[in-house]
Amino acid sequence: MKAFAISRNWGYLFVTYFKDINSIKYEGSNSSNPFAFKFYNPEEKIGNQTMEEYLRFGVAYWHTFTMDGSDPFGAGTMVRPWNHYTGMDLAKARVEAAFEFFEKLNVPFFCFHDIDIAPEGSSLRETNKNLDTIVDMIRGYMKDSKTKLLWNTANNFTHPRFLHGAASSSSADVFAYSAARVKKGLEIGKELGAENYVFWGGREGYETLLNTDMKLEMDNMARFYHMAVDYAKEIGFDAQFLIEPKPKEPTTHQYDYDVATSLAFLQKYDLQDHFKFNIEANHATLAGHTFEHELRYARVNNMLGSVDANQGDPLLGWDTDEFPTDVYSATLAMYEIIKNGGLGKGGLNFDAKVRRSSFTAEDLFLAHIAGMDTFAIGTRVAQKLIEDKVLENIVDDRYESYTSGIGLEIVKGKTDFHKLEEHVHNLTDVQLSSGRIEQIKATINQYIVKAYAEA
Amino acid sequence: MKAFAISRNWGYLFVTYFKDINSIKYEGSNSSNPFAFKFYNPEEKIGNQTMEEYLRFGVAYWHTFTMDGSDPFGAGTMVRPWNHYTGMDLAKARVEAAFEFFEKLNVPFFCFHDIDIAPEGSSLRETNKNLDTIVDMIRGYMKDSKTKLLWNTANNFTHPRFLHGAASSSSADVFAYSAARVKKGLEIGKELGAENYVFWGGREGYETLLNTDMKLEMDNMARFYHMAVDYAKEIGFDAQFLIEPKPKEPTTHQYDYDVATSLAFLQKYDLQDHFKFNIEANHATLAGHTFEHELRYARVNNMLGSVDANQGDPLLGWDTDEFPTDVYSATLAMYEIIKNGGLGKGGLNFDAKVRRSSFTAEDLFLAHIAGMDTFAIGTRVAQKLIEDKVLENIVDDRYESYTSGIGLEIVKGKTDFHKLEEHVHNLTDVQLSSGRIEQIKATINQYIVKAYAEA
Amino acid sequence: MKAFAISRNWGYLFVTYFKDINSIKYEGSNSSNPFAFKFYNPEEKIGNQTMEEYLRFGVAYWHTFTMDGSDPFGAGTMVRPWNHYTGMDLAKARVEAAFEFFEKLNVPFFCFHDIDIAPEGSSLRETNKNLDTIVDMIRGYMKDSKTKLLWNTANNFTHPRFLHGAASSSSADVFAYSAARVKKGLEIGKELGAENYVFWGGREGYETLLNTDMKLEMDNMARFYHMAVDYAKEIGFDAQFLIEPKPKEPTTHQYDYDVATSLAFLQKYDLQDHFKFNIEANHATLAGHTFEHELRYARVNNMLGSVDANQGDPLLGWDTDEFPTDVYSATLAMYEIIKNGGLGKGGLNFDAKVRRSSFTAEDLFLAHIAGMDTFAIGTRVAQKLIEDKVLENIVDDRYESYTSGIGLEIVKGKTDFHKLEEHVHNLTDVQLSSGRIEQIKATINQYIVKAYAEA
Amino acid sequence: MKAFAISRNWGYLFVTYFKDINSIKYEGSNSSNPFAFKFYNPEEKIGNQTMEEYLRFGVAYWHTFTMDGSDPFGAGTMVRPWNHYTGMDLAKARVEAAFEFFEKLNVPFFCFHDIDIAPEGSSLRETNKNLDTIVDMIRGYMKDSKTKLLWNTANNFTHPRFLHGAASSSSADVFAYSAARVKKGLEIGKELGAENYVFWGGREGYETLLNTDMKLEMDNMARFYHMAVDYAKEIGFDAQFLIEPKPKEPTTHQYDYDVATSLAFLQKYDLQDHFKFNIEANHATLAGHTFEHELRYARVNNMLGSVDANQGDPLLGWDTDEFPTDVYSATLAMYEIIKNGGLGKGGLNFDAKVRRSSFTAEDLFLAHIAGMDTFAIGTRVAQKLIEDKVLENIVDDRYESYTSGIGLEIVKGKTDFHKLEEHVHNLTDVQLSSGRIEQIKATINQYIVKAYAEA
Repeated sequence: MKAFAISRNWGYLFVTYFKDINSIKYEGSNSSNPFAFKFYNPEEKIGNQTMEEYLRFGVAYWHTFTMDGSDPFGAGTMVRPWNHYTGMDLAKARVEAAFEFFEKLNVPFFCFHDIDIAPEGSSLRETNKNLDTIVDMIRGYMKDSKTKLLWNTANNFTHPRFLHGAASSSSADVFAYSAARVKKGLEIGKELGAENYVFWGGREGYETLLNTDMKLEMDNMARFYHMAVDYAKEIGFDAQFLIEPKPKEPTTHQYDYDVATSLAFLQKYDLQDHFKFNIEANHATLAGHTFEHELRYARVNNMLGSVDANQGDPLLGWDTDEFPTDVYSATLAMYEIIKNGGLGKGGLNFDAKVRRSSFTAEDLFLAHIAGMDTFAIGTRVAQKLIEDKVLENIVDDRYESYTSGIGLEIVKGKTDFHKLEEHVHNLTDVQLSSGRIEQIKATINQYIVKAYAEA
Repeated sequence: MKAFAISRNWGYLFVTYFKDINSIKYEGSNSSNPFAFKFYNPEEKIGNQTMEEYLRFGVAYWHTFTMDGSDPFGAGTMVRPWNHYTGMDLAKARVEAAFEFFEKLNVPFFCFHDIDIAPEGSSLRETNKNLDTIVDMIRGYMKDSKTKLLWNTANNFTHPRFLHGAASSSSADVFAYSAARVKKGLEIGKELGAENYVFWGGREGYETLLNTDMKLEMDNMARFYHMAVDYAKEIGFDAQFLIEPKPKEPTTHQYDYDVATSLAFLQKYDLQDHFKFNIEANHATLAGHTFEHELRYARVNNMLGSVDANQGDPLLGWDTDEFPTDVYSATLAMYEIIKNGGLGKGGLNFDAKVRRSSFTAEDLFLAHIAGMDTFAIGTRVAQKLIEDKVLENIVDDRYESYTSGIGLEIVKGKTDFHKLEEHVHNLTDVQLSSGRIEQIKATINQYIVKAYAEA
Repeated sequence: MKAFAISRNWGYLFVTYFKDINSIKYEGSNSSNPFAFKFYNPEEKIGNQTMEEYLRFGVAYWHTFTMDGSDPFGAGTMVRPWNHYTGMDLAKARVEAAFEFFEKLNVPFFCFHDIDIAPEGSSLRETNKNLDTIVDMIRGYMKDSKTKLLWNTANNFTHPRFLHGAASSSSADVFAYSAARVKKGLEIGKELGAENYVFWGGREGYETLLNTDMKLEMDNMARFYHMAVDYAKEIGFDAQFLIEPKPKEPTTHQYDYDVATSLAFLQKYDLQDHFKFNIEANHATLAGHTFEHELRYARVNNMLGSVDANQGDPLLGWDTDEFPTDVYSATLAMYEIIKNGGLGKGGLNFDAKVRRSSFTAEDLFLAHIAGMDTFAIGTRVAQKLIEDKVLENIVDDRYESYTSGIGLEIVKGKTDFHKLEEHVHNLTDVQLSSGRIEQIKATINQYIVKAYAEA
Repeated sequence: MKAFAISRNWGYLFVTYFKDINSIKYEGSNSSNPFAFKFYNPEEKIGNQTMEEYLRFGVAYWHTFTMDGSDPFGAGTMVRPWNHYTGMDLAKARVEAAFEFFEKLNVPFFCFHDIDIAPEGSSLRETNKNLDTIVDMIRGYMKDSKTKLLWNTANNFTHPRFLHGAASSSSADVFAYSAARVKKGLEIGKELGAENYVFWGGREGYETLLNTDMKLEMDNMARFYHMAVDYAKEIGFDAQFLIEPKPKEPTTHQYDYDVATSLAFLQKYDLQDHFKFNIEANHATLAGHTFEHELRYARVNNMLGSVDANQGDPLLGWDTDEFPTDVYSATLAMYEIIKNGGLGKGGLNFDAKVRRSSFTAEDLFLAHIAGMDTFAIGTRVAQKLIEDKVLENIVDDRYESYTSGIGLEIVKGKTDFHKLEEHVHNLTDVQLSSGRIEQIKATINQYIVKAYAEA
């Protein structure tokens, strides 16, 4: 395998990490081969595009190559063929494994935080040097790979220095440190051709209001974002900037609580034109919303940027980051994305980790297959629903009264309280029609169950 | 009122409530007729039985014929062809409508609380007299109908007298009142051939511990249940007794919190042999469990009696009692039910109400069709999973170590801590295998999407 | 009692509804008289104002005079001395009772929805006529009473016509109806000298996205608000307009989810200068926030208008609207309010209902006493914390790094990513200090327990 | 390492870890010394006992000496004076620090898991050897210390081998391993005179039902417990066995969900006489219960054993294990404990960790002071409530009807449904009285605020 020749630089010739796994192929819905796609067919058309073009899937470097399976009550469990390396050798081995994985899975994108790809050094200079080494290696691999960088980001939450926040830290030194990290991240993004740059404020929030200056912290975050926008412009990095809302965890309250809250922030600080949102399913549910709600809200505000495709457990109160397997959720998510005209520069990043008990390297493939197949089903169902105008016809009927008469005047801004009151005085009766929720849900079931009956 | 006298001669001679609705027929998965089953085919075989025999669907009298669509912030919205009647005439009209509904929907069972079918009078005697009149009418209708009574129950929660509880009331008079109501309920159940009798303790719990004698209340509930068991025996009513767990709402804490809590209660008070559980999906999730968890827990304890088939909204904290449309949930529920060898005397009661905005009489049919079709899909998927031993093989592999060696000794009770420690000292390594959760979920998706591809 | 002379107009001379209750007086913390204030001392000074001036308590007409104690599983329980009246007589009796209650409780404000005070008629004209009659009566009572109208509002959620929303209804007729109701509400507010006018969008949201045009609905809400602003200006009604956020219930999702979401809406539609927020404790917790979070967020955005003082049960998922008895919550709420310089035109409306089992008229007094005493304690503790700069000193220490050097440059907007990176390269170490959360909480306990030790 | 040899001669001759902290003394409620008790006065009487005797506080070894402040998104932050040691030296340093901490805090008990005190070796033999070394050291320290071992336990959840469970593992080898660990734990408990032995089933549950044999797993757990009971008897270890319920986290569902669920398990498997419960506040709330509910339920079932004193955040869905600072919760917990006649062999273990941002060694003292003071206040308030029969009188009044007439017959088991129905027929009216919830809560506030006013 040619791509791995570069690994000679550190002494490992033609390494293969997943030697028992072949390239994952589409075998159709009757396949019983676990290591095959049953529904994700890259060549199938979704509208004018192929599934491969439309579903810009990304592999999350951290969950797939770095995460060890530890949880708050347990040590790491993941058995990985690169576990015997340490330090920079480990970082390099992960790059090799990653590109083998990308190729075998045939996935168009990947995403990473800085410290996913290279170990943090004892100083910013050393950290950046480590990054330079690995970024150079990644760039080399990317030359021979079709897999591109969907987005990168800076991990400004793991290190103890961020315990009071990053851009919202009570320490100006930490604010500066965070800025230096994002500066490097923007440079890396530019170097690797990232289509987006993500901000997830894992520590931007508070543990308790009792010791928190909320106004200063939010003002500082805004200053930070403005500087980031300026620096990207300065270096000619034209990636889409994305804020990733999450309501809580690790902090008690995070400032980017949900899409609406983050929109209020961007509007207040005149940042709205420079950002869109990276919306994660599990973050949506932690905030009390459905995934599709967050997508819809972003869409109607023209702020839908990209998606972290995963799912949570509705009975658990933390971010479980499961691989997406819920066809309902994938269908409704893809409905919003198709209605949005696609995700543009964005994509569907699997911000998802295999369960702690799915600890083999094979599970990494099986889980991604599960996620990709789920979205393939959802995409087909959503596309068919849209082609048949199932929901569109319902909506058109429901709101028909706004297309003429007093309704049209309302929409055109030509009424006032006087006219509206007069309208009521002249009404004999208000006619309402059923919302037909049960029937609509039954129809969606029909579309799901029939999605592959017709194939 | 003349119509009532005549309507006892079943045949829609004079009264038709759903005149625009014909009998609901199975038309297959390609049907676009909203008033047809797409998946529920009464004649389709599930193992040795037909779907009709296996899926003992029940219509909930209260949600379908009594509920008006009010919520804590809104008045009733339901438009019903019997709304112009009042008092006993209304009660009679509902019976007529009910049996027309049962026949058109072709449903084998129904369920009711006492006050669903007849208005409460100003005294227990008057209430019972009202009940007698309507029970007599229902018995008449049942002669000409295939629809039977799955269960009845006493509503010991709506009337203000139950504000401190019923069998757990702080008032002995209310305890007595509750007993009198259940006594009548048992008599009605016997008269109408009910296969089960249900206890839902909507007020059996507390609003605050601060004024509550928990021990006395639970002791009294146990005394109450023992008396009910005795009375049923006395009158020769051999229905299965069912407790319906719910954790909260309307009270802050209900004593029948979930299946496990209720089992502890039954065990403590030596009532376990006289009761099984009526498990409701939405009650399960309010208690922090999945529907299938409650079913499984009851099943492995040999306590699975009947099911209230509905669903909640995982993001809402109250009992939304939606019609079941989630195919995943229906599949996993039916998996437990099939593994249980069916529900015996129990059934699948749609303890579900149309949404407040689905206010037309048509929605009653559409919603039941949605629920029945959902369970038909789930049943087919579950049956196929079991036939193919999908989960069984996984479980057999995972627990194989208990079929020989030290594992078999553990299961047979032939080990002790000494032997087990010695076993560990002799172990070179503990071998674990992946739980393969992601792959299993992908397989279930494949079964769902393919369920009707093969038809 | 002089005020009741007006009641002669409809034939009831000198009626007394709460004949066994005398005026509620402050008796101090050692009093064992249930019908006395132990902590709320109207004359006690909070800063420069008396408690009476500072704590602008309001009685919620609906919970106190209209609510019957029904819940989704139970009928009304409330025993009220006006229950034997019906129709307009009932409405009049409630006014009499209300002003007797206000006087005996010595409370400065009340609040109402239109249909709390007068029954809805069969047409808007009839409804408005009913309102005119009662508003006239109320105005008469207000002449002889010190109790003023904190705010009024239109109930655009109870009637079936609002089942698909009010300003966000899918029916233009309902939009018009809602406008006519708010128009009348603004007129009533002006007539009675209301200091605020509240918008709670109980049906402004969706049951399911599947049949919802979110963009049109939100656009229409904005149009509605603009018309309301215009009409108030037209009639010279200078009340503060307040939006009351609530995330869900009765709908699945409400557009005014929380303060931040509502702020995004106001900003987007250029409405921010015309509204502030009416923040309810129980709505905050349903949205996943603490009460104090919502107050803080509104405060730092200069949007804190008024407060609905109640509390929820953190283990229950619906709006329990309990009387506030949690001293922690009252302390932290009052901390925000004092830091805000008070509530201006706003107040502390007890949007709280006695428990269903607290059904006597006495409980209405006892519950308000509980709430007022709780806020009196909280106010005293908060004031003392502020006087001693307990939290201010902590905050000043934590953020000290922003008062000089690089921190000051950040705050002044004089840095960029280059300078910040350079700053990091020159850093030897980042020094952080403990957030001391446990100690701070212990200190607050000390202030609470000592609050009346010093008196 | 010389220091360890010498430190066995207790007296801080050579090693001091908390050199800037003196012994924590009671200074009274006006003290502003952070390192002093304001409310916990060891000599104050609670009934016949001193606070020191009554409040059997325990320090959790893991949170205080082992925990590093890491969370799922962040590395360790804790600055500890023993952090420069590693391996067995680290284990020894922690023992020294622990006993210095116990003495300075003047706390009567501590608790540990095996791996808290000694590092796990590469084999069970090596692990046990490590344990023997440290247990020997601890026993030495205990000779000169008043601090005793409240309970110990085996950590059968952290190591990867437990990823599928311990006693409920799908691997018989892991079952055996778990047994060997508990065997050693029981031996250690006996050696150190532990008064209790705790079982927390952190991995005893499932991630998904789809691959789980629930019946076999629960049967195996029961077999395991029986063997543990037998072995303790065999070695003459007469500690109280405690099960610690928790509903979820780390697993999706844990078998010891809550007290009632665990009671059902113990009853079913005939284990009830051998176990009581160790009830944790934060576990209660995760299960949907108040802390006091779990205590009450255990108390009325005579199963209240011991307490893990901490608190959660009601808005967060994971186990935050905060130090208890909520006086309401402490009051209601102590109310149950006092009504239980104390905790017997049990105690109040601070299963609580300082916040990640409270990273200094001082915070360990400040947090324990906060917890001990909170329980001191709660104890005083609860004791006073009981002395004044505040709640007892309310309860006696509410249930008075069960002390004579039909109520007494019910309680004595002398009625049946016939007699009860007859009683109702003879009733003219059911009289109910208000539950007075608001007044009761106001009274509790009065007791809290006045608790130290009287001192």
